[in-house]
Amino acid sequence: MSASTGQPPAKRPTIKAVAAAAGVSTAAVSQAFNDKGRLAEATRQRILATAVELGWSPNAPAAALRSARTRTLALVVRRPTDVLGADPHFSELITGIEGELSPRGYGLLLHLVAGVREETALYQRFAAEGRVDGALLTDARADDPRPALVARLRLPAVVLGPPDAAGPVPSVGLGHQGAGVEEVVAHLSGLGHRRIAYVAGPAELHHTRLRRDAFEAALKAAGLRPWAVLHTDFTEVSATATTEALLAAPDRPTAIVYANDSMAVCGIGAAQRAGLRVPDDLSVVGYDNLPLGHWLHPRLTTVDQQVQRVGGAAARTLLARCGEDVAAPVLEDRPRLVVRESTGPAPG
Amino acid sequence: MSASTGQPPAKRPTIKAVAAAAGVSTAAVSQAFNDKGRLAEATRQRILATAVELGWSPNAPAAALRSARTRTLALVVRRPTDVLGADPHFSELITGIEGELSPRGYGLLLHLVAGVREETALYQRFAAEGRVDGALLTDARADDPRPALVARLRLPAVVLGPPDAAGPVPSVGLGHQGAGVEEVVAHLSGLGHRRIAYVAGPAELHHTRLRRDAFEAALKAAGLRPWAVLHTDFTEVSATATTEALLAAPDRPTAIVYANDSMAVCGIGAAQRAGLRVPDDLSVVGYDNLPLGHWLHPRLTTVDQQVQRVGGAAARTLLARCGEDVAAPVLEDRPRLVVRESTGPAPG
Repeated sequence: MSASTGQPPAKRPTIKAVAAAAGVSTAAVSQAFNDKGRLAEATRQRILATAVELGWSPNAPAAALRSARTRTLALVVRRPTDVLGADPHFSELITGIEGELSPRGYGLLLHLVAGVREETALYQRFAAEGRVDGALLTDARADDPRPALVARLRLPAVVLGPPDAAGPVPSVGLGHQGAGVEEVVAHLSGLGHRRIAYVAGPAELHHTRLRRDAFEAALKAAGLRPWAVLHTDFTEVSATATTEALLAAPDRPTAIVYANDSMAVCGIGAAQRAGLRVPDDLSVVGYDNLPLGHWLHPRLTTVDQQVQRVGGAAARTLLARCGEDVAAPVLEDRPRLVVRESTGPAPG
Repeated sequence: MSASTGQPPAKRPTIKAVAAAAGVSTAAVSQAFNDKGRLAEATRQRILATAVELGWSPNAPAAALRSARTRTLALVVRRPTDVLGADPHFSELITGIEGELSPRGYGLLLHLVAGVREETALYQRFAAEGRVDGALLTDARADDPRPALVARLRLPAVVLGPPDAAGPVPSVGLGHQGAGVEEVVAHLSGLGHRRIAYVAGPAELHHTRLRRDAFEAALKAAGLRPWAVLHTDFTEVSATATTEALLAAPDRPTAIVYANDSMAVCGIGAAQRAGLRVPDDLSVVGYDNLPLGHWLHPRLTTVDQQVQRVGGAAARTLLARCGEDVAAPVLEDRPRLVVRESTGPAPG
């Protein structure tokens, strides 16, 4: 895991230090964050990068001065409400966040929104009304407008995800996202599998694309091509129907990799109902390492992406930015394959 | 499902109407809610009951007058954070609540607390700081101090659970909680099972006790006694270990009923690993009807307690009390057995 920035410095950084390091005036530093358009874009980018590097944000001093904190952090999730229930990823994430918030008396303000316009309107409302101390941004995507927005709004924030989508905001996520998928492909090809299918999440999500790309690259490196890559909406219905379609095909895959554990569990159910044994006839791999996977029969082979731990680290990073005396999270890790019982040698 | 009270009346009730109906002065009505100790307890109880009956609360007028609502409802969960992740009940509940909040631009302020003292301190803080428009109270228990507290604080609230633990606060929950467990016992005894064990939740939870009592009463009515009743902390580790202990016993049970679906899934895994077939050698019943249960192999027999729907109805009831123009929830239902594939005739 790597917190690209955001570790609370031993001494609170100042706007003067940022100005000096970037070779500009303190007024220019303010302008860079207010986005008033008076600075050359290259200068603005340099200032933002310097500020991030030093751990300074225009909010931190204000937050320190404010007499009453709200002791509330916001988590806005841009998903249909039924997916929240279907994807245990979110309860794991919230569990990790709450593990840090709860002992400190903080609450988590959860909002579900349908689109990016609603989400940005919420951040504007939070900033205007002083309703939260900070926000955790999920589902980072390329060209994400939110990091720049929250920086302009002076709303302390942390992006859950890779640094490349975080812009001027610190990010917290596992390093080398592709590592888990690479291990999966190496594991399956080592077991003799050649026909490997991938059941992905919704095509429009950034991490779906990253993981699918990693899957295809790893297969290519092993001299293979995906037997199929199919997208779902993460629901059980969709995961089951997709699996049934894959298994009904002639020359069906001998291994299916799923983008999360709950879909993999549905996949095992669908395979068993079709009269196939897992892993004798079909190997199944999940992603997330949810607790339940360890207790099923067969126990689920999966990728541990430490959702709870990342959620906790993001919460700690944000708490530190909100002026709480919180130690920087212990970092340095990457998604790792956990081999259990749902994978075995390719049949035939 | 029954919302014991809390349906928004056609016309907003007044303190005068409450006073007239209870045969007291309006000052006495105020005192009843402020708990100033000047009223005889019987009088106070009568006033509170009348107010609840008429749908009046001291908060409603204040809320109507407030210029800016927070558009935030609070959900305080008194559980260790790791149980939040282990028990999908909560993500189902939150999904149901968010289904009503999200389209109306409301957020859910989630707090996890360790004990009742922390929880009551939070309601006091919410009321003092005007931080939320209302609160949903979960895990109702007998002699629950929270309904009287939130009434005193004039914090609009709804209890998720049976009316008997709700005091002066409206409650929303399925009617006849024992009905599901009664159907389970009838189903299993009809299949010839005589050795039926129950794997319960934590002994201190109100609904754990209610459900265990219902289980024992239903067995007694069928001329049986529980083979065993064992308590867990709802985690997978605990559910698995408990199942292993039950299956290792001489003259082991032929059916195990679990207090939730995720424990039942762990139970099926443990049985299969012990070389038993479900349902040929062991019948397994869950409780909750989580989506995943439908897709496992064998599909899980369970009790549908409509967690999402109850969460949604509670949210609607609270929104109405907060002055939103929300229709009263459609009600009248009870927990129902859903027979799938994990139960079958008793072996031998």
